[in-house]
Amino acid sequence: MKSSISVIGAGSWGTALAISLSKKGHYVNLWMRNEEQFFQIKKTRENIKYLPGVILPDNIEIFNDICDAVKASDIILLTVSSQAVRKVIRSFKDIVREDQIIVNAAKGLENTTLLRISEVVKEELPRNSFAVLSGPSHAEEVCRDMPTTLVVASYEKNVAEYIQDVFISPKLRVYTNPDVIGVELGGALKNVIALGAGISDGLGFGDNAKAALMTRGITEISRLGQAMGADLNTFAGLTGIGDLIVTCTSMHSRNRRCGIQIGQGKKLKDAVRSIGMVVEGVVTTEVAYKLSKKYEVEMPIATEIYNILYNNSDVREAVVNLMMRSRTHEIEEVAQNKKFEW
Amino acid sequence: MKSSISVIGAGSWGTALAISLSKKGHYVNLWMRNEEQFFQIKKTRENIKYLPGVILPDNIEIFNDICDAVKASDIILLTVSSQAVRKVIRSFKDIVREDQIIVNAAKGLENTTLLRISEVVKEELPRNSFAVLSGPSHAEEVCRDMPTTLVVASYEKNVAEYIQDVFISPKLRVYTNPDVIGVELGGALKNVIALGAGISDGLGFGDNAKAALMTRGITEISRLGQAMGADLNTFAGLTGIGDLIVTCTSMHSRNRRCGIQIGQGKKLKDAVRSIGMVVEGVVTTEVAYKLSKKYEVEMPIATEIYNILYNNSDVREAVVNLMMRSRTHEIEEVAQNKKFEW
Repeated sequence: MKSSISVIGAGSWGTALAISLSKKGHYVNLWMRNEEQFFQIKKTRENIKYLPGVILPDNIEIFNDICDAVKASDIILLTVSSQAVRKVIRSFKDIVREDQIIVNAAKGLENTTLLRISEVVKEELPRNSFAVLSGPSHAEEVCRDMPTTLVVASYEKNVAEYIQDVFISPKLRVYTNPDVIGVELGGALKNVIALGAGISDGLGFGDNAKAALMTRGITEISRLGQAMGADLNTFAGLTGIGDLIVTCTSMHSRNRRCGIQIGQGKKLKDAVRSIGMVVEGVVTTEVAYKLSKKYEVEMPIATEIYNILYNNSDVREAVVNLMMRSRTHEIEEVAQNKKFEW
Repeated sequence: MKSSISVIGAGSWGTALAISLSKKGHYVNLWMRNEEQFFQIKKTRENIKYLPGVILPDNIEIFNDICDAVKASDIILLTVSSQAVRKVIRSFKDIVREDQIIVNAAKGLENTTLLRISEVVKEELPRNSFAVLSGPSHAEEVCRDMPTTLVVASYEKNVAEYIQDVFISPKLRVYTNPDVIGVELGGALKNVIALGAGISDGLGFGDNAKAALMTRGITEISRLGQAMGADLNTFAGLTGIGDLIVTCTSMHSRNRRCGIQIGQGKKLKDAVRSIGMVVEGVVTTEVAYKLSKKYEVEMPIATEIYNILYNNSDVREAVVNLMMRSRTHEIEEVAQNKKFEW
């Protein structure tokens, strides 16, 4: 089965997915907005800025005109940053056919509306089928055929299974999951915890502290997710704890690297600038903070990170607060709802 | 509140806990079987073999006679390897008072009986109160006052809270949990997954593959745990996924380091020898394999690792099998019990 896929955005993840799809023999249109990048990639067949060292196979066609890139394909794969999704869709929505499937691979939430990307797409393209692609998958490894798992979620089972068929390969194992909300929230919110994990690393705290932060992090993400209609189990899976693990422990993660610099004392603006790509977690932290208020869910980690990023909270104090507030006789959070004899 | 604690075993974890307790002003008796080590530590106040670079505070008394070490204390803290627990208890049980609390900090299961350590202690010292200490806590960080979380579980709430009070400090945050079975199983079984994570690293697979392995690993541990009477929530907490994370990602972990060498092609025996300390996961893999048969729980990761360690399975093939068996239309495991409209 060969499909034709428009990959919208040529950051590291868009480029890696384009390469992976093209190796399966699919027809791939790779679109990028930046003209300079367009001419550079056309010429060298390498995405020098975002994914250096990997040559694009010949069956990837490079586009700078989004309508040309979109018009003839079966699938429109969005890999632009979450805050750009709506604007990008508006730039091609007039020529979209109803049978084109929209797949989102960006991991964030829309800041101005607090909406998930599936909701943004629904507003802009209400008649198109939708799927979200997520999971523990650094682009730098996927484009080099290192074993990776992905999850595709959709409200429509046949859509999820079709997208699964399109992406699956011997080195890329793709699962389906019906829980769109849980898959979207896990992918977006883990970036907040990754910033925190980076901050902990930047402060010189160790593996013990970071593991505790990650464990408490997935707990508060799950709590918010449940309040928003997700299934708790999804957060125990690849798009929940799996993606959190890979993001908090790998040097490939921009969110973690940004956090490390903040932990070392850099200003947010300087840290983001030095990463040189979008750091989704910075905006997502604000969204998470607002969502925790809206749904009245306690999220101590997201709140402390929000205060570090946006209210100049002292970094060391915030992390020490999180880790070490000295209440005694504190039962472990996950054990609190239990019916033991205590 | 000052207590007196007999720390039984002077490996890295026993030594680190002895140091941490002594800094709180507790009276600590540190026992070790090895006479040479005893004289060395007596003389230098440093555990050169297992925890080099850290000087033991003066209020730690060093013992080579186990009955002398045990007889006057409030708490007997077991830090010997899991397979040695029963024998060590038998060497002092005649002089134990009923009001001495037994705390186990070893993370394993008894190979010959498949028993948890709490069950072993119950058989040997049926009248003594018991608690288990676990969580993401590398000794190398705890002894250097790096922020760490621990969990203490006991069937008796007042015992758990007393042990919590004994251990808690500004850098060591201790939670309680009533789920003794879940806490014991999480601490023991994560070592099996850590061997697998090390093997994946040793084969040169990346962060994506390891995160997938860890996610699937905690799922199968939880499944076995539930069948054995543990609460599922405990595996989402510090002694479950938290300890799994720290063990699979830190170079402090002996189990992971042993796995790396196996992944690189070393024989099990040579890998264990080069670590120079007990690698609990090697025996625990066999126990996990037997438990999965006994409780009829599918544990694909534990089974593949068992076959690598004990049946000469090809390492690369086993890991590729685990990661990449190419069934299509596979719904994510955690999503399978759900009531979505699919």
